[in-house]
Amino acid sequence: MKEVRFGIIGLGSMGTHHARYLINNKIKGARLTAVADINPEKLRWAEESGIQSFTDENAFYCSGLFDAVLIATPHYHHPPIAIKAFEHGLNVLSEKPAGVYTKQVREMNEKAEESKQVFSIMFNQRTNPLYQKLRELIQSGELGQLKRINWTITDWYRSQSYYDSGGWRATWKGEGGGVLINQSPHQLDLLHWITGMEPSRIRAFCYFGKYRNIEVEDEVTAFLEYKDKATCVFTTSIGEAPGTNRLEIAGDRGKAVIEDGKFTFWRLRVPESEFNREYTGGFGEPECWKIDVPVTGKETGHQGITQNFVDNILYGTPLLATGTEGIKSLAASNAMQLSTWIDDWVTLPVNEDLYHQKLTEKIKQSKIGKSVSDKTLSVDGTY
Amino acid sequence: MKEVRFGIIGLGSMGTHHARYLINNKIKGARLTAVADINPEKLRWAEESGIQSFTDENAFYCSGLFDAVLIATPHYHHPPIAIKAFEHGLNVLSEKPAGVYTKQVREMNEKAEESKQVFSIMFNQRTNPLYQKLRELIQSGELGQLKRINWTITDWYRSQSYYDSGGWRATWKGEGGGVLINQSPHQLDLLHWITGMEPSRIRAFCYFGKYRNIEVEDEVTAFLEYKDKATCVFTTSIGEAPGTNRLEIAGDRGKAVIEDGKFTFWRLRVPESEFNREYTGGFGEPECWKIDVPVTGKETGHQGITQNFVDNILYGTPLLATGTEGIKSLAASNAMQLSTWIDDWVTLPVNEDLYHQKLTEKIKQSKIGKSVSDKTLSVDGTY
Repeated sequence: MKEVRFGIIGLGSMGTHHARYLINNKIKGARLTAVADINPEKLRWAEESGIQSFTDENAFYCSGLFDAVLIATPHYHHPPIAIKAFEHGLNVLSEKPAGVYTKQVREMNEKAEESKQVFSIMFNQRTNPLYQKLRELIQSGELGQLKRINWTITDWYRSQSYYDSGGWRATWKGEGGGVLINQSPHQLDLLHWITGMEPSRIRAFCYFGKYRNIEVEDEVTAFLEYKDKATCVFTTSIGEAPGTNRLEIAGDRGKAVIEDGKFTFWRLRVPESEFNREYTGGFGEPECWKIDVPVTGKETGHQGITQNFVDNILYGTPLLATGTEGIKSLAASNAMQLSTWIDDWVTLPVNEDLYHQKLTEKIKQSKIGKSVSDKTLSVDGTY
Repeated sequence: MKEVRFGIIGLGSMGTHHARYLINNKIKGARLTAVADINPEKLRWAEESGIQSFTDENAFYCSGLFDAVLIATPHYHHPPIAIKAFEHGLNVLSEKPAGVYTKQVREMNEKAEESKQVFSIMFNQRTNPLYQKLRELIQSGELGQLKRINWTITDWYRSQSYYDSGGWRATWKGEGGGVLINQSPHQLDLLHWITGMEPSRIRAFCYFGKYRNIEVEDEVTAFLEYKDKATCVFTTSIGEAPGTNRLEIAGDRGKAVIEDGKFTFWRLRVPESEFNREYTGGFGEPECWKIDVPVTGKETGHQGITQNFVDNILYGTPLLATGTEGIKSLAASNAMQLSTWIDDWVTLPVNEDLYHQKLTEKIKQSKIGKSVSDKTLSVDGTY
């Protein structure tokens, strides 16, 4: 294959964004050849650009016009669309989250593996050199065994007008959640990707419609416990201005903080556990060096992920964000909602049937009958 | 009264520290006239300095040698000693914590109020101009209604040798807890003192002997919920090097952070709630100014609290740390342990009898039989 031809399904805010950079030849070795949306109005501009458009999903898959599907529909549709694409022998690049509930995503992952097609997911924050560097330090043992993580990621400010811009937004039926499913999947993904750890149980405190007139969670504090007794506090909110994005990881050999685009590492000369074993002086602590970690390279974002996906298909370049890994952050997200609903710990892997049952109840009990316009927002400056 | 004569009871690390600055005339209008300890060896240096010493508690109270008792015994003894002092018509300055369980402290507070003597508590972090300034900003409304607090106070590093230096340290019987009762009372005190809020319920995750060979908690993460739905994450540990001390408070009119001795305030030009009501643009947030808040004055610490106590007795200067307020931070501390023990929420005010029952069980079940030396550690650089 010399070129990857793309078909985009879903032309809302994100789909339109992906279409634009593909049309503008920002991705080497890629070309946008088809788009699909159930709303014909959203297809008009594509037709004017000479791109084949579809309102019928099956006609889209059977067109033979593309090698890869880029999925940018509402979240619930990601898994079934990916499954269909795999069945048609197509490669898949899906927007995050992987889906809304892990049961659905597990099926998608099984299909992906059967199909042997390339499957990637739009975790574009993995292209951020700060997080890549932190991951490298942890994986090379510079921090030693991890003790405690605190990620305060509250810079997802969204006003009521944002929620009113799309009928599917912030509803159980349309999105299956709020800040956890729409904004924070990036950080939930980075959390396991950077640390290499997955929580064994989670106790979370979600607030639903605390700051906005929405039925889903708009503020979350979650406590995660790992097998080796490391812990994590994960806090996210759409209701704060200005928000915070600060990741702190304490380990046996020091502490790392990423904040304001800077990576600081406090490096102990001897591991804390070793100091503790040998020290006899009562008060006192190990010698520590504060280091500004040099971080090079630039965050390539959505285009970086799309380019990596294309390069994998064309040249076998390793995938930065393997599609099947999307289930990990979704499992954390599901566990956080479930923990709040049952007001108790949730042990991982999450009870998929229980989660799905509770989610279905929420959808049934929903009193939301939005009659708002379905605007296409500019996503410049977000991700 | 022209001079406040002090009697110190308890000559361990802290009592010795207080005695030294009193002897060195660091407190205007105060003089150390008597000391008491059950261990005669600890009194020897005082006798050499010409200060009257007592091993008998009653003889100490009845000596008529002092106007105020400074209590620096192990925590359990703070309330009964304060009660005796009040009964002898003496003023009281107690080390923190107020006691180990609120039931005991409530009785002390009742006696204090009956006696009309001056009662202060060694919350010397209240003398820190950074926290005074933050309190002033919040109380004057600069932050608006508070939304979320995160205090990561993990710079209480203590090695095993610290715990091995005193037989009473880090035992249920000797201290009634670990980092919550010994190190963090300062921050638990500042939390309500700065914000003016008390939590309505707490869900906490204490780890007992996770980093040290001790039976009490050495790492705690607690989630506090307030009546108006503000929340707080409070994290403390003795097992991390280097620790963190970062206090972040998000409000409707901006965000305040105290870290590394600096106070930064992100001030919104219009309150977030107002922006949200009026904004129609989807993505977007209120204009925000980053401000380095000027903080003047210096932290006067233990001596500042002792001086303030003396000035209150002599001149009626308002107390900075009223003794009866000690119950608030203790209630939070008790609730955090209890929440872990019952693995559930604890509603405030804490169930005093249940807490006391559980604590008594811990003492009975204790397998600690320490046979270590009772060293007097230097407390320089701690508080």
